Amino acid sequence: MSTTANRRWLLVRYPEGIPPLDTWRLEEAPIPEPGLGQILVKAHWLSVDPYMRARMSPARSYAQGVSPGNVMTGGGVGEVVASNHPAWKKGDIAESMQFGWQEWSVLTPGLPGSSGVNRVDPNLAPIESSLFWLGMPGLTAYFGLLDVGRPRPGDTVVVSAAAGAVGQLVGQIANLAGCRAIAIASDDAKLAWCREIGFATTINYRTVQDLGAAIEAACPSGVDIFFDNTGGPIHDAVIKRLAVGARIVICGRIALAGQFGKPDIGERLLSDLLVTRSSAHGFLVTDWWHRRDEARRRLAGWHREGKVRVRQDIMAGIERMPEAFLRLLNGKNFGKQLVKIL
Amino acid sequence: MSTTANRRWLLVRYPEGIPPLDTWRLEEAPIPEPGLGQILVKAHWLSVDPYMRARMSPARSYAQGVSPGNVMTGGGVGEVVASNHPAWKKGDIAESMQFGWQEWSVLTPGLPGSSGVNRVDPNLAPIESSLFWLGMPGLTAYFGLLDVGRPRPGDTVVVSAAAGAVGQLVGQIANLAGCRAIAIASDDAKLAWCREIGFATTINYRTVQDLGAAIEAACPSGVDIFFDNTGGPIHDAVIKRLAVGARIVICGRIALAGQFGKPDIGERLLSDLLVTRSSAHGFLVTDWWHRRDEARRRLAGWHREGKVRVRQDIMAGIERMPEAFLRLLNGKNFGKQLVKIL
Repeated sequence: MSTTANRRWLLVRYPEGIPPLDTWRLEEAPIPEPGLGQILVKAHWLSVDPYMRARMSPARSYAQGVSPGNVMTGGGVGEVVASNHPAWKKGDIAESMQFGWQEWSVLTPGLPGSSGVNRVDPNLAPIESSLFWLGMPGLTAYFGLLDVGRPRPGDTVVVSAAAGAVGQLVGQIANLAGCRAIAIASDDAKLAWCREIGFATTINYRTVQDLGAAIEAACPSGVDIFFDNTGGPIHDAVIKRLAVGARIVICGRIALAGQFGKPDIGERLLSDLLVTRSSAHGFLVTDWWHRRDEARRRLAGWHREGKVRVRQDIMAGIERMPEAFLRLLNGKNFGKQLVKIL
Repeated sequence: MSTTANRRWLLVRYPEGIPPLDTWRLEEAPIPEPGLGQILVKAHWLSVDPYMRARMSPARSYAQGVSPGNVMTGGGVGEVVASNHPAWKKGDIAESMQFGWQEWSVLTPGLPGSSGVNRVDPNLAPIESSLFWLGMPGLTAYFGLLDVGRPRPGDTVVVSAAAGAVGQLVGQIANLAGCRAIAIASDDAKLAWCREIGFATTINYRTVQDLGAAIEAACPSGVDIFFDNTGGPIHDAVIKRLAVGARIVICGRIALAGQFGKPDIGERLLSDLLVTRSSAHGFLVTDWWHRRDEARRRLAGWHREGKVRVRQDIMAGIERMPEAFLRLLNGKNFGKQLVKIL
């Protein structure tokens, strides 16, 4: 990391579908100065997450997007190097969605909701965990499965993108709730690991001959909870095998990244919901932010006891941010994708 | 009504789309004899309801269909003329989904769930009410809005097929729950009546220039509950105007009757659910059957107090059953469609 300049990625233009590499431009800027009530942090880790695709668009969404010419949106964790805020001091570790794709950030503690700045205890777990299983993806899995999906012992839980940041946790929490978890993912190495961490059955949707038949074989009494991280053809196959009273947890749409901004046309699921008396739920983890301490405490306990295992996929250097993000959009990551800032 | 023969409608073949009139065949059969534990009833009223379209198919659904060569499925209400059951006597009034499209039926009290036979008190309300606001459509509106939709005072509730058997009740119950109800229907006379019974705003989807803009104007802070009786283009327009945390109650798909059996292709609602943190719920009134007395008691009270008004559309004669059903599928009925058996 430069200590004289701030390398940062600007959005050049709104992309279509999967963004090409020249969607962003790396520039050097002066290291910013914290104003009153602000802190200056040096990033140690930056996160790439699927939600970022939706930020690169002027379309209606649940959060403010980034416009061309501005620093690309993203969360990170790092060390406070200067503070004009009474609750923060030099050397503290701060995690926030305010980082952006840059080496140095000025953060404003006390902004509401997920835009806040969270203190990270480096003795509790490696600090990058705050971007993964103790952070947004972990809480997404925890609240999405437990509060939106409402698992009962004996339920069959199907998880797409099962080796991803959220999926791997959903499967393990489902096991803790007495459910049987089925992993769907794109390659055999990922699926072997899914079995290691406790998924009962796995399906490789790229190599399987008949995805629907494979789901039926894996779920003889139907799918009680579908944790949908991808949308697309996996979604279409699973909704034909819902049990009565099934819950679909709509978490992500990464299979549709290639057609981002275009309408998602296909067979509507409404008749399937009607016939099986099932429900489909959109949700955002930030709506459960007031319970984040509960989730973190339990996730930390399960991790300490070896009941929840985690896997991350690390690239190094600010210059690799677009590459890491595209890796994620193309399903090439194996575990939570992170970028270590050197 | 013949007292020497039983006129009854048989399904001739599984139709495609909206059934043509020769889908059924009227025949005369001997008046059936009740077996042990059964009763013989003379139908006074028969019901036609949208769900019947789904019974005329071998496809997966939540209830047994009718196969060609058998009496067409349907509910009715009538008088017991002979009883081999200890709890029923001649002159009692019985309502049941077991009637079928025929003048005389043998019913089996005590079959589970909605297949049972219900006693009707002719002093409480006209007996045909048991096929409408005190029966399946009434309970569908009651539980669908209150238990599935979970209205809060101040919610905006959009109802499609708003003058229909279910829709007219949903709007009035929404008012009782402190909500603002918006009616969507197919003609101005129906909509004028919807305003009379308390819908705040109405939209004629056949004549409006821009359905989406009309919904937006009627729901400036978005749609909190969408009681979806139709599917199709109305559905597509409403889901683009959901408020945060909206609930979609999937009740019927009558707009799709013309393409019955074909997949329902179009823009999926999953991104809209995700962005607005909303949910879509399939439901069947029979899942609330254990609470039918609660619903009937309240509906009867509201009706007595003039808080719920009802409108039915009556045809006369067993020979008009197919015509009445097609009237319903084509949206020509104004109020709950019933057939009086002479």
